[in-house]
Amino acid sequence: MSKKKVVVALGHDALGSTILKQLDAVRKTAKALADLVEADYQLTITHSNGHQVSMIHKAMTELRRIYPDYTPAPMCVCSAMSQGYVGYDIQNSLKSELLSRGISKPVSTILTQVTVDPYDEAFYEPKKAIGRYMSKEDADIEVNKGNYVTQQGDGYRRIVAAPQPIDIVEIEAIKALSDADQIVIACGGGGIPVIEQQHVLKGASAVIEKDSIAGRLASDLKADELLILTSVDYVYLDFGKDSEQPLKTMTVADAKKYIADGQFGETDMLPKIMAAISYLEAVPSGRVVITSLTKTADAVNEKVGTVITA
Amino acid sequence: MSKKKVVVALGHDALGSTILKQLDAVRKTAKALADLVEADYQLTITHSNGHQVSMIHKAMTELRRIYPDYTPAPMCVCSAMSQGYVGYDIQNSLKSELLSRGISKPVSTILTQVTVDPYDEAFYEPKKAIGRYMSKEDADIEVNKGNYVTQQGDGYRRIVAAPQPIDIVEIEAIKALSDADQIVIACGGGGIPVIEQQHVLKGASAVIEKDSIAGRLASDLKADELLILTSVDYVYLDFGKDSEQPLKTMTVADAKKYIADGQFGETDMLPKIMAAISYLEAVPSGRVVITSLTKTADAVNEKVGTVITA
Repeated sequence: MSKKKVVVALGHDALGSTILKQLDAVRKTAKALADLVEADYQLTITHSNGHQVSMIHKAMTELRRIYPDYTPAPMCVCSAMSQGYVGYDIQNSLKSELLSRGISKPVSTILTQVTVDPYDEAFYEPKKAIGRYMSKEDADIEVNKGNYVTQQGDGYRRIVAAPQPIDIVEIEAIKALSDADQIVIACGGGGIPVIEQQHVLKGASAVIEKDSIAGRLASDLKADELLILTSVDYVYLDFGKDSEQPLKTMTVADAKKYIADGQFGETDMLPKIMAAISYLEAVPSGRVVITSLTKTADAVNEKVGTVITA
Repeated sequence: MSKKKVVVALGHDALGSTILKQLDAVRKTAKALADLVEADYQLTITHSNGHQVSMIHKAMTELRRIYPDYTPAPMCVCSAMSQGYVGYDIQNSLKSELLSRGISKPVSTILTQVTVDPYDEAFYEPKKAIGRYMSKEDADIEVNKGNYVTQQGDGYRRIVAAPQPIDIVEIEAIKALSDADQIVIACGGGGIPVIEQQHVLKGASAVIEKDSIAGRLASDLKADELLILTSVDYVYLDFGKDSEQPLKTMTVADAKKYIADGQFGETDMLPKIMAAISYLEAVPSGRVVITSLTKTADAVNEKVGTVITA
């Protein structure tokens, strides 16, 4: 097959923040994804779930306040629900967009678990804020339950660990669909983190970075390309300064040097560059493109975006 | 391949009603399913979602009361979340159970949409109660929004239509995994009902009966067997009466006669028998077994359960 196997990573902008906004955002995202299908790319799609898992976590917490019979929903369950919710919206909108272009192609979502190491250092220093803002009193209750909280402005938020992904549990299912030239949505929100304890896969109170898992997915599928769609057209040096300049190309060696120079924001661009490096070290013939969602079609024609190669 | 292709339909008993009860119930269900895998059955699993979608619907409603910025979650979104939640618990527990038996076999969940006919007569007379009990005031608000409600005891509940399934949108993905001898969980809660309107798949305010979709799934996959696991060991004639007697075998013709005689409960056994008939008319070489979840292993050895054939 001459088709290019591409893993696409979608960020917050591609999804919106509430139910109605997501419906609207995903319809636009579906157009960009359909352009890639028309360019004869075989797509495996992964996505973030920050807003969605927060909304669900809030809802499940409020439910329990009103109906105390309901036991709390652990993060792994909220994450599974968010994969169902976001996956449905993407597969629904993309299928509809493809049908409207006369393309009859299977699109589906595989619910995905990802194993993590219980000794990952991220568990010792949780950093990822999730869920609603809490009062000091509610924050103290969380701490007493053994959870971590952090102060943000006047409020408090729960924080969880963001460990590195080890294995994608459902990788064989994803591969089977990808090999059958079907469009697959997988590893939503980074995947549901699980810890393997004597054959039992135990849901972990953690989240996996969407970019980390996108790199792993591209490596496992030996994808020809990893396309990271975000809110900026290029990766920049001196981002936000007067001396800011876009990078049109970058090698892994360049990337490592820029990281050492502290060029990339720890919570936004750095995880993307780290994912690019990890994929290109596993698949040296691969290619990473980082650009904005709205420029997807131009990126296919190499008119825009930062291209990273080994 | 000599493997028997079996569609398994799991009812409420297999899943429990709250987050902790589900975790416990699904672990037991996983043992029954693993017994089937060890008997060399290729499994496609579908399940109900009544308690789960009600819990999520309640949670999303309460969320909106407290944070009015959140737009209401339509039934299709709640249904998608429930597929994520239940699918995760089943695939996690079954994978763990298989690993503990030394079986390394892919298990995954495909999020599934199912098209329904907007002119299905069920839309004119909704019957399926969903979500929390409401006060008269809240019920009036629902009616003013164009929704249907029904009085149950002292309270009111929203009711939605339960239309017949037309097409399983993601059937090609389910087939690809089934053909690759992987275990697939699909069409959870009957599938997310969608109406096709000029290439757009629009989420419908409805639910599809789990048994109806199990029959359709078994037909589409040309399964060798449809195994409906419920809370009774057999289908009974004169169920609950002194003259009650279990049926060990039944033909489609028998089944139609018993239906005409009003032998089967409208909301519990009738949908199962209807699903059996629809599958056996599509796949006359097929076989339907109806028994209780706890008797799964005995049913494999033909020691228990009602067997229905064409």
